[in-house]
Amino acid sequence: MSESVGIVKTEYVTFDTELQLESGRLLGPITLAYETYGQLNPERSNAILVCHAWTGDAHAAGRHSSEDRKPGWWEDMIGPGKVLDTERYFVISSNVIGSCKGSTGPASINPRTGRPYRLRFPVLMVRDMVHAQKLLIDHLGLSTLLTVIGGSMGAMQAIEWGIHYPQMTRSIVPIAGTARTSPMAIALNAVARRAIYNDPMWKKGNYKHEHPPSDGLALARAIGHISFLSDASMHLKFSRRYAVKDGLFDFFGQFEVERYLEYNGYNFPSRFDTNSFLYLAKALDLYDTAWNFDSLEEALGRLRCPSLWFAFTSDWLYPPNQTEEAVACLEKLGNPVEYHLIDSDYGHDSFLVEPEKFTPILGAFLKRVTASRNSVDP
Amino acid sequence: MSESVGIVKTEYVTFDTELQLESGRLLGPITLAYETYGQLNPERSNAILVCHAWTGDAHAAGRHSSEDRKPGWWEDMIGPGKVLDTERYFVISSNVIGSCKGSTGPASINPRTGRPYRLRFPVLMVRDMVHAQKLLIDHLGLSTLLTVIGGSMGAMQAIEWGIHYPQMTRSIVPIAGTARTSPMAIALNAVARRAIYNDPMWKKGNYKHEHPPSDGLALARAIGHISFLSDASMHLKFSRRYAVKDGLFDFFGQFEVERYLEYNGYNFPSRFDTNSFLYLAKALDLYDTAWNFDSLEEALGRLRCPSLWFAFTSDWLYPPNQTEEAVACLEKLGNPVEYHLIDSDYGHDSFLVEPEKFTPILGAFLKRVTASRNSVDP
Repeated sequence: MSESVGIVKTEYVTFDTELQLESGRLLGPITLAYETYGQLNPERSNAILVCHAWTGDAHAAGRHSSEDRKPGWWEDMIGPGKVLDTERYFVISSNVIGSCKGSTGPASINPRTGRPYRLRFPVLMVRDMVHAQKLLIDHLGLSTLLTVIGGSMGAMQAIEWGIHYPQMTRSIVPIAGTARTSPMAIALNAVARRAIYNDPMWKKGNYKHEHPPSDGLALARAIGHISFLSDASMHLKFSRRYAVKDGLFDFFGQFEVERYLEYNGYNFPSRFDTNSFLYLAKALDLYDTAWNFDSLEEALGRLRCPSLWFAFTSDWLYPPNQTEEAVACLEKLGNPVEYHLIDSDYGHDSFLVEPEKFTPILGAFLKRVTASRNSVDP
Repeated sequence: MSESVGIVKTEYVTFDTELQLESGRLLGPITLAYETYGQLNPERSNAILVCHAWTGDAHAAGRHSSEDRKPGWWEDMIGPGKVLDTERYFVISSNVIGSCKGSTGPASINPRTGRPYRLRFPVLMVRDMVHAQKLLIDHLGLSTLLTVIGGSMGAMQAIEWGIHYPQMTRSIVPIAGTARTSPMAIALNAVARRAIYNDPMWKKGNYKHEHPPSDGLALARAIGHISFLSDASMHLKFSRRYAVKDGLFDFFGQFEVERYLEYNGYNFPSRFDTNSFLYLAKALDLYDTAWNFDSLEEALGRLRCPSLWFAFTSDWLYPPNQTEEAVACLEKLGNPVEYHLIDSDYGHDSFLVEPEKFTPILGAFLKRVTASRNSVDP
């Protein structure tokens, strides 16, 4: 029977380096937060890198203490006997730079000034996040990754790993991803951004830690939340029910869906830094696999490994046709590629909500990659 | 060749009455703004009522002066030789109550206090708007409407006319409508509302006319705007182009889609009252054809006329399956119903952007209804 990895601890490592970013700017030193689950085998060949989405963190599985009410964000996926089986694989989950969950981001101290970066933090691309993760993988003494897997922004990182470190990356599994963010997704981030800018507490990023722009960030989160759900999942969860205590003809009366979005929105500012939210939104908007290549073909042509792609029928943020664009390109290139469109009502969030719909396929893929690892060129 | 109705004038009529609203509250006196195009025939049988959407108005065709840069909002549909042919039909376009375009709404003077209603205005339902329109139709001396037609909120009004005034309504044409607003549509309105509430200038509706909550309303409008478009139409219009003057790595740099939404958002507060926007959003959220009936079947079972329904493939705000729910219900009831799913990339706005895709079908329908008018029961 599958169980949890149990009590885990977030580790931190600081690299005294200056990372050259896509923007041309330098960032350093760089701290990364990460967690690992399972054991590295003697051949050092069983490492899997798990990449998180926008507001995720390194804590993908287990609990930080026995009192922890919630496990890590991909608890259903990672553990003994689970698809990312910690009795077989050494699983690494790394928080991205730009985040506020232990890695260097806009809330970190700028060594040049001794004060938080805030808006002096450089604009990042997903590619920069991956270059920083490479420092961690080197630090862990790994020369190959059996797979790099992630959903949403995690899918983007998986693609970037395959393209930029083809010698190290033995497979990639982008889930609910896109080869380039669409104008619709950018537009949704744009209004989320504006919600924050409109909050007088934002002060162009110079808010006090104790007084974040909660109204703006809660609204931004609610806008994002809508895009992660679907018409069908909202019907299942809320239908048109009206909040019990509210009168239907009260001006400020709320439908349940409205109350839910507000409640969840206002939970968010206590656990996420507003400037980080904005920098990561920007990185999402800028994401384009073909960035600095002549074309998507040229970029994906650098892949040297098999790839497994999942998209979800009800995902309207990064809809299936965006994954299919990348898959079609790889097929044209003759690259070993496998694609599954998963029928799910849970929208973009399906990769978190219904992993059981794709874990059998993923498990079989990982076994094939493991078995073939000696036949792949070094 | 089809041409414009030319110079037109908005008319106003005030009814010294107290309208009983669905909420139980009374509203009166009631002023309605309206325009008419074409001539009523001697039999008084050629009247068509055009119903506008959320932020629309009575000005559906022609120009108010020769200097007017833009014609009415359905200029492509209404005029000599057009589908709503003003040489054949007497077209009436009426602004709804709750709006700020000449009809009684939250910015109107409350006769009980001598000051604007603001949030003392009663919460309205679409049904109330239609009951108020009935006063206008009576005032014009009409006992039948050849058709009631509209898109989005206009579709809701058309449905309500068919259900509540079956003796008068000879056909209805709901376009891009829904039988009940979905939780997704409510959620989008909820974040738009919140954008306004977050603006300190809103002052719980007590803003000064000269100092509206522009930041909040502009953001609310941008959120709505996204829902009226589609992924495909945004690709066509903006792709991933970056605003020319902005650097890709500038924190405040913008994609073109972002700049467009902001520009259009900030044009909005000068032409629309914030409280009206909120009251009409509420009416949209509350819309449910089955309201105060036992079921949708019971509500639609009151229709005594043929109906013609259009939905658009790329409309994700009121997606085709929502129109299809009402159509299936009418088919089950044995009611004469015709439905067309129109292939369009322009999302919910398709009814405004690509009328040529449905006008041939509509024209044929109107001719059939006109021809059969004497065979319909009185």
